[in-house]
Amino acid sequence: MALFEITDILLAAKREKGLTYTQLGAALGHDKVWVAALLYGQARATQDEAEKLLGLLNLDLELAELLTDYPLKGSLDETVPTDPLLYRFFEIMQVYGLPMKAVIQEEFGDGIMSAIDFTLTIAKVEDPKGDRVVVTYDGKFLPYKKW
Amino acid sequence: MALFEITDILLAAKREKGLTYTQLGAALGHDKVWVAALLYGQARATQDEAEKLLGLLNLDLELAELLTDYPLKGSLDETVPTDPLLYRFFEIMQVYGLPMKAVIQEEFGDGIMSAIDFTLTIAKVEDPKGDRVVVTYDGKFLPYKKW
Amino acid sequence: MALFEITDILLAAKREKGLTYTQLGAALGHDKVWVAALLYGQARATQDEAEKLLGLLNLDLELAELLTDYPLKGSLDETVPTDPLLYRFFEIMQVYGLPMKAVIQEEFGDGIMSAIDFTLTIAKVEDPKGDRVVVTYDGKFLPYKKW
Amino acid sequence: MALFEITDILLAAKREKGLTYTQLGAALGHDKVWVAALLYGQARATQDEAEKLLGLLNLDLELAELLTDYPLKGSLDETVPTDPLLYRFFEIMQVYGLPMKAVIQEEFGDGIMSAIDFTLTIAKVEDPKGDRVVVTYDGKFLPYKKW
Amino acid sequence: MALFEITDILLAAKREKGLTYTQLGAALGHDKVWVAALLYGQARATQDEAEKLLGLLNLDLELAELLTDYPLKGSLDETVPTDPLLYRFFEIMQVYGLPMKAVIQEEFGDGIMSAIDFTLTIAKVEDPKGDRVVVTYDGKFLPYKKW
Amino acid sequence: MALFEITDILLAAKREKGLTYTQLGAALGHDKVWVAALLYGQARATQDEAEKLLGLLNLDLELAELLTDYPLKGSLDETVPTDPLLYRFFEIMQVYGLPMKAVIQEEFGDGIMSAIDFTLTIAKVEDPKGDRVVVTYDGKFLPYKKW
Amino acid sequence: MALFEITDILLAAKREKGLTYTQLGAALGHDKVWVAALLYGQARATQDEAEKLLGLLNLDLELAELLTDYPLKGSLDETVPTDPLLYRFFEIMQVYGLPMKAVIQEEFGDGIMSAIDFTLTIAKVEDPKGDRVVVTYDGKFLPYKKW
Amino acid sequence: MALFEITDILLAAKREKGLTYTQLGAALGHDKVWVAALLYGQARATQDEAEKLLGLLNLDLELAELLTDYPLKGSLDETVPTDPLLYRFFEIMQVYGLPMKAVIQEEFGDGIMSAIDFTLTIAKVEDPKGDRVVVTYDGKFLPYKKW
Amino acid sequence: MALFEITDILLAAKREKGLTYTQLGAALGHDKVWVAALLYGQARATQDEAEKLLGLLNLDLELAELLTDYPLKGSLDETVPTDPLLYRFFEIMQVYGLPMKAVIQEEFGDGIMSAIDFTLTIAKVEDPKGDRVVVTYDGKFLPYKKW
Amino acid sequence: MALFEITDILLAAKREKGLTYTQLGAALGHDKVWVAALLYGQARATQDEAEKLLGLLNLDLELAELLTDYPLKGSLDETVPTDPLLYRFFEIMQVYGLPMKAVIQEEFGDGIMSAIDFTLTIAKVEDPKGDRVVVTYDGKFLPYKKW
Repeated sequence: MALFEITDILLAAKREKGLTYTQLGAALGHDKVWVAALLYGQARATQDEAEKLLGLLNLDLELAELLTDYPLKGSLDETVPTDPLLYRFFEIMQVYGLPMKAVIQEEFGDGIMSAIDFTLTIAKVEDPKGDRVVVTYDGKFLPYKKW
Repeated sequence: MALFEITDILLAAKREKGLTYTQLGAALGHDKVWVAALLYGQARATQDEAEKLLGLLNLDLELAELLTDYPLKGSLDETVPTDPLLYRFFEIMQVYGLPMKAVIQEEFGDGIMSAIDFTLTIAKVEDPKGDRVVVTYDGKFLPYKKW
Repeated sequence: MALFEITDILLAAKREKGLTYTQLGAALGHDKVWVAALLYGQARATQDEAEKLLGLLNLDLELAELLTDYPLKGSLDETVPTDPLLYRFFEIMQVYGLPMKAVIQEEFGDGIMSAIDFTLTIAKVEDPKGDRVVVTYDGKFLPYKKW
Repeated sequence: MALFEITDILLAAKREKGLTYTQLGAALGHDKVWVAALLYGQARATQDEAEKLLGLLNLDLELAELLTDYPLKGSLDETVPTDPLLYRFFEIMQVYGLPMKAVIQEEFGDGIMSAIDFTLTIAKVEDPKGDRVVVTYDGKFLPYKKW
Repeated sequence: MALFEITDILLAAKREKGLTYTQLGAALGHDKVWVAALLYGQARATQDEAEKLLGLLNLDLELAELLTDYPLKGSLDETVPTDPLLYRFFEIMQVYGLPMKAVIQEEFGDGIMSAIDFTLTIAKVEDPKGDRVVVTYDGKFLPYKKW
Repeated sequence: MALFEITDILLAAKREKGLTYTQLGAALGHDKVWVAALLYGQARATQDEAEKLLGLLNLDLELAELLTDYPLKGSLDETVPTDPLLYRFFEIMQVYGLPMKAVIQEEFGDGIMSAIDFTLTIAKVEDPKGDRVVVTYDGKFLPYKKW
Repeated sequence: MALFEITDILLAAKREKGLTYTQLGAALGHDKVWVAALLYGQARATQDEAEKLLGLLNLDLELAELLTDYPLKGSLDETVPTDPLLYRFFEIMQVYGLPMKAVIQEEFGDGIMSAIDFTLTIAKVEDPKGDRVVVTYDGKFLPYKKW
Repeated sequence: MALFEITDILLAAKREKGLTYTQLGAALGHDKVWVAALLYGQARATQDEAEKLLGLLNLDLELAELLTDYPLKGSLDETVPTDPLLYRFFEIMQVYGLPMKAVIQEEFGDGIMSAIDFTLTIAKVEDPKGDRVVVTYDGKFLPYKKW
Repeated sequence: MALFEITDILLAAKREKGLTYTQLGAALGHDKVWVAALLYGQARATQDEAEKLLGLLNLDLELAELLTDYPLKGSLDETVPTDPLLYRFFEIMQVYGLPMKAVIQEEFGDGIMSAIDFTLTIAKVEDPKGDRVVVTYDGKFLPYKKW
Repeated sequence: MALFEITDILLAAKREKGLTYTQLGAALGHDKVWVAALLYGQARATQDEAEKLLGLLNLDLELAELLTDYPLKGSLDETVPTDPLLYRFFEIMQVYGLPMKAVIQEEFGDGIMSAIDFTLTIAKVEDPKGDRVVVTYDGKFLPYKKW
């Protein structure tokens, strides 16, 4: 699967303008991670959000059509990512996946954590022994329906 | 890869005793997720911890030898898990992996979030529109070394 | 992935008793497909439902422990199933997957059909040119959250 | 496998004209899903249907040659789709595949549901707790021949 | 996928009795290939056929229960078979698959050759330059339905 | 693997001329399937055959160089084809592969059906219940050599 | 795929008797490589050869039934073998495969080297700089048939 | 992996000049197979050899830079090649791999046949029953080191 | 995954200038392997380092933007590399991976060797029996955290 | 691929005796890594070495037969290992593989580092900021032969 077709254009404009994801997020009224997801074609903007973003990046407003459309989601080329930063998330799922399933089901019952009614935030926690990356997943619990 | 060879024994004893991961964690002085990881063969106990756990579960203390050894880690049989609860974590990596990489590198520089100097906690947040599962990853940032 | 460990026992008892999924469903107050999913380890019964089922099948009530637990879901050994009946469902996803995505998003917006808040029913429609299998998926639409 | 070579052109024209699949379907006398399948290169039009469609979309009638030809079917790049909406159909096959096989064979005998003598429709059912997506597969039962 | 669980028993009995597939086919009133498919768990017998076969092979009539059930079909362990005789059928599909598709669609229209309403026969044609294996596939043409 | 580089050109010319594989085969003195294989880059023409074909299709005779060369054979992009017509040939190998091996070895001994000293023909057999596709494989039996 | 079921028995008996493949080959009147192929279930003996081999190895003559049968050929568990000695043969095919194809087709025309009407011999050539392994493949050229 | 970037240019020039691998080999003082490997980017020429080859083929001497460089070796796109001529080499490894390992280790000890200190030659042996392709691998035996 | 987009440009310039990795490393104050990693898009330069490198290679300073960015790491197209030099590193992991894990855990405890706080150096050790390649991995030991 | 059949027995005996790889190595006159490789079935002992090892571990001397035989090498079940310690070696090959190839070929010419005429040692280097694991590969350079 190819990356979203205008990701390169958006990233280059962001680099040129020297804007951070935090700044873009503040301007759009959304979290920095959601805005990054938008640039990587994993989220869908309203017409207003798209135009505001394109304005900030000094890009042609016609691109709004693509930012408001529904792309094929899933932005990694490989089932097991080779990039070390990305791989660690795969490793966490491999090592801690079954323990998480056990704990979630013990506390919530039969169901899943939604990845749709879901937010993902990232914080930097300073620490003299080395700063820490704190990633928080917050998803609605969806119980299995019986019929 | 087969599951840790005594996981089934440990889980059956836990069920029989009616103990939760939270209770086991409190008794061992560790988080419920770490204890679940221990039962699934993804973490290594000290001799004391192993014996305390086996005592709580009324199991033969000789099993401590296995709980204190170094198993092959990675507890999922399949690269892409078919279980819906587990799959959602794979989906999050697919959909939000590159946006997370972009944000982490913008804020921390070239490096990764460690999955070794790392903790994982799970909280249940009650919500009238449906309770929420909150999963927190907390890993040390490791910058790439130059040489 | 191995099948649910007591599926073979449940199926043999069902065959011996000469009971159909429809009959089992009526007795449990659930649809025949949900009951079949229970026998294949893809759904979770309450203690009552489990005991009622085991009673009907003349099986040891101790098995209720397994019917009320949370198995690893996903019951096919192969990513692309070789069984012709099962394969046709894979083919439908291959051929009609993108058209369905286009129609669902046009009518509902950015989101998915839930496979958790979901029911699946099967009807036999007699037809002189050959009876027809009618399978109905009914899932809640879940819109993507922005944050 | 690449998408049908003129899908992008057809979708852009449809977006520009502001036409829905329902409107295109009404104009062609076919269901909205079948029309979507045609745009994604998974179905084959007659010369008349092709020209009517191209007329509505204001496109060159020479493209009719491609709409009336037999493309390689199967429109997903990946065996297991990463797009969350598409993945749910894969998950349904994984979780409910064997239960469906059990029910269909119990009620119809040895054979399959055809994916060729087959229709697929999608309805939106409004519901105060969240609208529901209802997808119906209707395929002829084909019994295995003995010889 | 494991072979049909009683294939080994059936084959050993057949070898002991010194019976050929042609002889078994004549006794059951079916083609030798269909009978071979039955022994390999790819077809389903009636109770009468199953008992007749088991009688010929001097086996316990209780096995009829398995011969009349619906096994998971698809008898090869590997996607690309390594056995040279089997591989040649994969090679034919690789080399002549698209040409066959082109010819079938040119002569029949949009649709497929059924593999369900289908027979497969094998003949030995003697030839001084080396005998020839003649395999004939005979399947109903199924045209795609429009809706 | 990409398709033979001039397949698209040959097919477009054939469509424009309105010629069928049967007509091309008659003109070249070969079967329609062999001619289709030539157009898909799976067979090799003599200089005469190549020029005759190019003449019929009104194409540049310089292309004869490619039609007389030895391409990499195997024209499917995917190990398991997603196109339904092509998939049925994979399904037949999965379901009837071992039964065919059993019958061929019982009648011919240890060896294989050649896919090189081999012909493949396709006939349309009209039938009021639906026309039938009859595909015939005719390959020399090659016994294993001992040394 | 599992190894031929009696390979372990045959190898243990050979080791116990202290016999080499060369000695077994001389006794049976076949090459040492063919005899090794027989022990690994890749070739088929006559009743006489099977009994002679079993006699030499002091094994039950009833095993002749398996040595004279037709096993599923292909003795490696993995598509790309991890054993270094075996891998080198894969590497040779990767590195020199296309050059070999080019030379064989230039000298023989369109066709293949048979792997059935084929012998494989291994010689040890002493060399002061290090002994050399010389492996010779000798297969009949099979030209593609036109029809 | 793409083919060596100038293979197509080299092959076209060779075809135009009507030169065989044997003639090119004689001119360069190397075997025809080694020269074919050079054209397919699997071997590395000296500056002299590269210029001599380019001269014979009437090509720009600047290409010598690429012929003297170190390409990524391994010229097949697919793990299991679909081309029938290439596949037979994979089949030989599958069927005769373990027997070869057994014979080589019995005669040489623990180690491998080098694929680097290695030559590969091809001869055509005329035979009234069909010419034979004789391929000879000649590699240094490398014993495992202990430390 | 494609190679870093300017690797070809950097390598061509390096070849033209006749500079070695050792020379580039000396000029930048880094090891030759780290510099090679930079050219292959696997490491990230400071603005100064990037400009110094581009100056040495006589390239446009605007490329510094790419050398200072964070590329997707992982430079091999294939999970199991076909290039013989690269494959040997995969083979070492296959053959000596578990023994290394056993020794490292025995001496260090539960944890890993970091591949981030890590250096890799290569030395050439002359030896009359054949020069030796000595590769040294030096990574910080990271112990698993308990929580 | 299964682990060497007596690895579990050897490891259990080693644990019971409380012996380290260093102690076993000293007793056998080999490096600790080579001894670990022997226990994991990746190396081959002489009869003397095998008996000495079995004596130290108090095991039946009949097992010497297996320690002196030639096992199938390659001890990992998965192409990409999920165990984090093992994965890091895969990651190093992915990230630094091409840079290593570039440096080795620049300094040695066209060829490879042998993984057969090869030693692997591991040292623990104490460091106040965290101990370091130092792994050294030392393999003979093998230049490609021309012929």
